[in-house]
Amino acid sequence: MEPRVDVITLAVADLERALVFYRDGLGLATRGIVGTEWKGDDDNAAGTVVFFELAGGLMLALYPDLAKDANISAPPASGAFSLGYLVSSRNEVDALLARAEAAGATLTESPRERPWGIYSGYFRDPDDHLWEVIWNARAG
Amino acid sequence: MEPRVDVITLAVADLERALVFYRDGLGLATRGIVGTEWKGDDDNAAGTVVFFELAGGLMLALYPDLAKDANISAPPASGAFSLGYLVSSRNEVDALLARAEAAGATLTESPRERPWGIYSGYFRDPDDHLWEVIWNARAG
Repeated sequence: MEPRVDVITLAVADLERALVFYRDGLGLATRGIVGTEWKGDDDNAAGTVVFFELAGGLMLALYPDLAKDANISAPPASGAFSLGYLVSSRNEVDALLARAEAAGATLTESPRERPWGIYSGYFRDPDDHLWEVIWNARAG
Repeated sequence: MEPRVDVITLAVADLERALVFYRDGLGLATRGIVGTEWKGDDDNAAGTVVFFELAGGLMLALYPDLAKDANISAPPASGAFSLGYLVSSRNEVDALLARAEAAGATLTESPRERPWGIYSGYFRDPDDHLWEVIWNARAG
């Protein structure tokens, strides 16, 4: 694993409220709410999200459906979050999740395609912190 | 507020276990456990911590005493974390905390000096996510 975090995803109960807090309250620039074309269904979380591009290529995401996407139980406004780590192939997603599991992590969600074009899975570290390992097929 | 996150701090119940997971399990390089000279007392959290230097100047910290330092209640292995934001003066710490509070955040810990030479305070965003605003007096 390279020493990187690519995405910090914050679970939010009310996306509009969170957007107003970070954009208007703290002054972070954003394109606003995107991904509304992915409505979610029984199998898939919705894709609606807010992104802030941070220094160094880091992304901050506000995401109402993190708990469903990660297959964790978390009440709204729980402070749940995930750290996202990008890799460059499907095999690398599988390999890193396997490595994490071998090291004592728990897989909450086996890797799979998501409607918005990524392949990802989630693990929890021994203290319950959530990581998503992501291959963005569209980025090659 | 500039679009930056400088530190990702993960609360851990067992620092040695977390170190083994991230260093040996996932392969991230670190100097190991540092800050043991700050033992903590009734008023101050202990300073014992593990840092990983990530790409882009980002730091990942494993910190057993986050709950005490942030003045929050959190069980061990709760997934509690904070995002750290560095500023260049004491006044900027106070100003950003005031701005966050005005925008709807809750201050969990008023800004104050910490034994390891920083001045910082914490707020929670409307979804309970914790931020620490930090001035490192030693860095000027």
